[in-house]
Amino acid sequence: MNFCSTCGARVEHRVPPGDTLPRFVCAHCGIIHYENPKIVVGCIPEWENRILLCRRAIEPRIGLWTVPAGFMENGETTAQGAQRETLEEANAKVEMLGLYALFNIPHINQVYMLFRARLLNLDFSAGAETLETMLFEEHQIPWDQLAFATVKRTLKLYFSDRRDGRFRFHMGTIEPLPTSSRRVAADEERVKDEQ
Amino acid sequence: MNFCSTCGARVEHRVPPGDTLPRFVCAHCGIIHYENPKIVVGCIPEWENRILLCRRAIEPRIGLWTVPAGFMENGETTAQGAQRETLEEANAKVEMLGLYALFNIPHINQVYMLFRARLLNLDFSAGAETLETMLFEEHQIPWDQLAFATVKRTLKLYFSDRRDGRFRFHMGTIEPLPTSSRRVAADEERVKDEQ
Repeated sequence: MNFCSTCGARVEHRVPPGDTLPRFVCAHCGIIHYENPKIVVGCIPEWENRILLCRRAIEPRIGLWTVPAGFMENGETTAQGAQRETLEEANAKVEMLGLYALFNIPHINQVYMLFRARLLNLDFSAGAETLETMLFEEHQIPWDQLAFATVKRTLKLYFSDRRDGRFRFHMGTIEPLPTSSRRVAADEERVKDEQ
Repeated sequence: MNFCSTCGARVEHRVPPGDTLPRFVCAHCGIIHYENPKIVVGCIPEWENRILLCRRAIEPRIGLWTVPAGFMENGETTAQGAQRETLEEANAKVEMLGLYALFNIPHINQVYMLFRARLLNLDFSAGAETLETMLFEEHQIPWDQLAFATVKRTLKLYFSDRRDGRFRFHMGTIEPLPTSSRRVAADEERVKDEQ
């Protein structure tokens, strides 16, 4: 941020009076521009004993598999956001079954919220940001071709809970790998379970 | 938003190619400025059979009671944010016990996440944005002087669950009052000024 989005003047990066953190403050009109974490919403669409995954047609992680998910929009609920993303990425209609997992990713200022969901029919197909969509049984999941640590962790928990016959709500934090191992596993992150 | 925060040129409000919603787009540098919901994090601090509430020293709802809560910051987890807000507003140290309630407030683009928490000691006091802090038993809760719908709903659920001997995770959506009663609750729209 270089300029004030309200008046167009240059902004300064400093701690406002009474605050504890540096913010972008407009030197002209005085407005404070806060920056806050973004929410990513998505779901695990179920059909009998299979789940629907999407192969990404866009960066990051183009060509890898994920659950339908994306940035929550203003004016919608978390469940509505997850439903919209599923329609956009997989042309699939789903009914939400409840929040299943929440992951903090503080180093990129994101909070992931993934729901369990029920596919309403088999009329799905790749959306504009998806190469292909497919239903997978547990033994068919492409574990080494999943796009994100959140997705891998969520699916591991999901199948483990399913074997136990009970879906619990899970919370965790995704941390970047220590610098020494960054090169080896640039695409991997550490998951710390919290609940 | 009137100006591009990157290059300072005027922005236009239009649907970018491949998108479905209007965004603020810079006519000069082409950058798209997305706007997304903000997360409010807080907790219900418990001490034996009492809970800690704060009386607000700032608008909106100055003079009314609330649980410690505020906007989540970049670089922290939801639990860390709730912990920080409790320290800032009540000078109270807490240990998080798990996510208790999530409320969508789509008409003001917010998602509330409230944890159950355990007060670590009785060394608490009003922070800069608080008039007073106090422990309340259930029958002492000032139900008609609570600041926000989310707080009232969360506390109702909390005491109901406590009677049942089992705290479940709750999710809900707060909707604006019908137009006819808007005047009474005009402050509902101002919650987003809290930061």
